[in-house]
Amino acid sequence: MILTVTLNAALDITYRVPALVPHASHRVTEVTERPGGKGLNVARVLAAIGHDVTVTGFAGGDTGRVLHERLAHEPRVTDALVPVEGASRRTLAVVDAATGDTTQLNEPGPAISPAEWSAFRESYEELLRRGTTAVALCGSLPPGVPVGAYATLVRAARAAKVPVLLDTSGEALRRGVAARPDIVKPNADELAELTGSHEPAQAARDARRRGAHAVVASLGAEGLRAVTPEGTWQAAPPALVRGNPTGAGDSAVAGLLSALVEQLPWPERLARAVALSAATVSSPVAGEFVPSVYEDLLTRVAVTGEATAA
Amino acid sequence: MILTVTLNAALDITYRVPALVPHASHRVTEVTERPGGKGLNVARVLAAIGHDVTVTGFAGGDTGRVLHERLAHEPRVTDALVPVEGASRRTLAVVDAATGDTTQLNEPGPAISPAEWSAFRESYEELLRRGTTAVALCGSLPPGVPVGAYATLVRAARAAKVPVLLDTSGEALRRGVAARPDIVKPNADELAELTGSHEPAQAARDARRRGAHAVVASLGAEGLRAVTPEGTWQAAPPALVRGNPTGAGDSAVAGLLSALVEQLPWPERLARAVALSAATVSSPVAGEFVPSVYEDLLTRVAVTGEATAA
Repeated sequence: MILTVTLNAALDITYRVPALVPHASHRVTEVTERPGGKGLNVARVLAAIGHDVTVTGFAGGDTGRVLHERLAHEPRVTDALVPVEGASRRTLAVVDAATGDTTQLNEPGPAISPAEWSAFRESYEELLRRGTTAVALCGSLPPGVPVGAYATLVRAARAAKVPVLLDTSGEALRRGVAARPDIVKPNADELAELTGSHEPAQAARDARRRGAHAVVASLGAEGLRAVTPEGTWQAAPPALVRGNPTGAGDSAVAGLLSALVEQLPWPERLARAVALSAATVSSPVAGEFVPSVYEDLLTRVAVTGEATAA
Repeated sequence: MILTVTLNAALDITYRVPALVPHASHRVTEVTERPGGKGLNVARVLAAIGHDVTVTGFAGGDTGRVLHERLAHEPRVTDALVPVEGASRRTLAVVDAATGDTTQLNEPGPAISPAEWSAFRESYEELLRRGTTAVALCGSLPPGVPVGAYATLVRAARAAKVPVLLDTSGEALRRGVAARPDIVKPNADELAELTGSHEPAQAARDARRRGAHAVVASLGAEGLRAVTPEGTWQAAPPALVRGNPTGAGDSAVAGLLSALVEQLPWPERLARAVALSAATVSSPVAGEFVPSVYEDLLTRVAVTGEATAA
């Protein structure tokens, strides 16, 4: 079973309005809601491609209860969110139907107490011991969780011999990388912030020197660049994919992680990650992918590069 | 016990953001939530001035459950919301901290089935028989409820000999007035829409001819104008009150209704309604009033007019 960690889990709400006008009153024409936060999005994609997945992180208050209920209805997903006193956050995307543009309003996460963080670590270590085949640590940290949280969680995974992927940014990424995760998946901005270099190949090599065993940088329309102990590859979709990039990075993480537990070689891991990511961009629903588009793209992703001489 | 009806009950959420910029991403700095919809606001004010109040209307889905829980914590308020299959709506007010302006996003209400509307009427008639001293019918109608709903509810109240106040707009008001409610409380726009006249004194007389026993028009800063079988009065706050008019009309309804069940004469009813309304405008929290400000204003509201010759 794959484990995804979302310390700042959310209920993602989308409002569609005819046109967003500041200081006016709007009738919302369509409301959609689903569990969100990067790790929960990764879990949904993993489940869609047939993997059993357990999700953990924090859930509290009215919104936390809604998260539990929604997760109970998602096939192949096991809910291991840890209860907290504070209320889980909502994120609201207001989609302007006239322009297609989105205005985002994100509630602050609940403040996590030291006792809650400690309860989480205990539950996480128990999950690592109970048949976890790989773990993804995803997204930002809520208030109250120490900035070195991901370093702690990476070390616990490595101690349990569970491969661990880290997808975060800023200081949480910097500290987490130093704990030697198996894979980090920064985007171009996150990689530049981590390393100070805007040249992806050099920055990826630098991120490995900082501790990451493998670096898979997501470069938007250019696809993925992987710098790993086994070699260096670049994987790109067959043509420019137009659409909504929301969730494309989470789909890439799901592709990498599922292919890792299936013990596929790097070129196949990257092809899957790029195909899932591109299928997500082209989907009419933000963060979802059309399976037939994914299957088609999978055969057409171009992977170039070379394995390290043995 | 006073009964308030809110067929389109809502959970009112307020987000504070540093500045609202369309198509940007915002960190919400403060989130507040409370049960809303006009009848629930009226109930909160009635409870605050010492009246026991029962609230009814519809509640469903996750938001409905939150409504039930919040109401359970409000002193002097009894929750008689009728369960429905659809999800109760949320309203979101996004307050721009830089300008103080508010952008409003209102979800559509749940669609009410004929069986749910029928269950509501049964519960309402039972409440009328079980010691209701007065009833307020407040706000808009959700999809599925017939446009003549308030006429039906007014007639049921009159049949039960329970005084009934109607506060709505448009066609729901037009139909409701024809069923001869004891009081209607339109604002200037609603009164003009009902009667076609923009001259409040003439429009109020016309609304009485359409069926309302008494018409109390809320005229913003000018206060209230009442045209009743007992006489005609105008009541105004002692000075221009600056602030947020949200909820001022609901506070006026609470003032009128509480004074009616206390069998106060019209001038005292109007003084209370104006004082509560002005205290609500001047409150820093939208829709709430400061008791000391209310007590002070109560002694200083100017009521002019005359009783009808007996």
